[in-house]
Amino acid sequence: MSRVSCAACKYQRKKCTSECVLAPYFPANQPKKFQNAHRLFGVRNMVKILDELKDEDQKSDAMKSIIFESDMREKFPVYGCVECISYLRQQLQINLQELQDVQSQLEFYRQQYPNFDR
Amino acid sequence: MSRVSCAACKYQRKKCTSECVLAPYFPANQPKKFQNAHRLFGVRNMVKILDELKDEDQKSDAMKSIIFESDMREKFPVYGCVECISYLRQQLQINLQELQDVQSQLEFYRQQYPNFDR
Repeated sequence: MSRVSCAACKYQRKKCTSECVLAPYFPANQPKKFQNAHRLFGVRNMVKILDELKDEDQKSDAMKSIIFESDMREKFPVYGCVECISYLRQQLQINLQELQDVQSQLEFYRQQYPNFDR
Repeated sequence: MSRVSCAACKYQRKKCTSECVLAPYFPANQPKKFQNAHRLFGVRNMVKILDELKDEDQKSDAMKSIIFESDMREKFPVYGCVECISYLRQQLQINLQELQDVQSQLEFYRQQYPNFDR
């Protein structure tokens, strides 16, 4: 069956068959996506991860996370997706602090007006 | 100079010299740390990432994030550290919602008692 080579097979100058496990995740028109993933993990590691998962949904989720991690590593060469984690932790910390402040203000109002019924 | 092989050289059955770029990050007594990183990224990719960074601090931060990503992938074979990101995003969302609720309650008190001075 003739088909357009996926970005992974194109890069490896291989014929892309219907058995290609990477084809669903690396369409021919998104070569950058494959390049980043290939650069960070390598084809063998990606295939190994896919081999270890049975469920199609799990394979697809694993590849999404692999592609996400690779794109993050391109964007942040030092921290990769830990940059994202640090940012989220920081935001969470700021929000928790703000929440605490607002709750203590609210508590103060409530103590002043114990019979206040909203 | 004779030295104890780092976990990376030990695994590769190589002599570990003072030029070994992986030695600072993979002490001999933590083989699991190396195995996870090797499994996910491979030695070549890690060395490539280190080669591209000039600053020692950056190298060390990059290796920390690499090791973190590898450990997360072992823990969560499908999502890797995206599991962590999803969790943090979810927590952030919950907190933002709570913050909004508390702020609107506070606003209500303030409208009821416009001259209230804390």
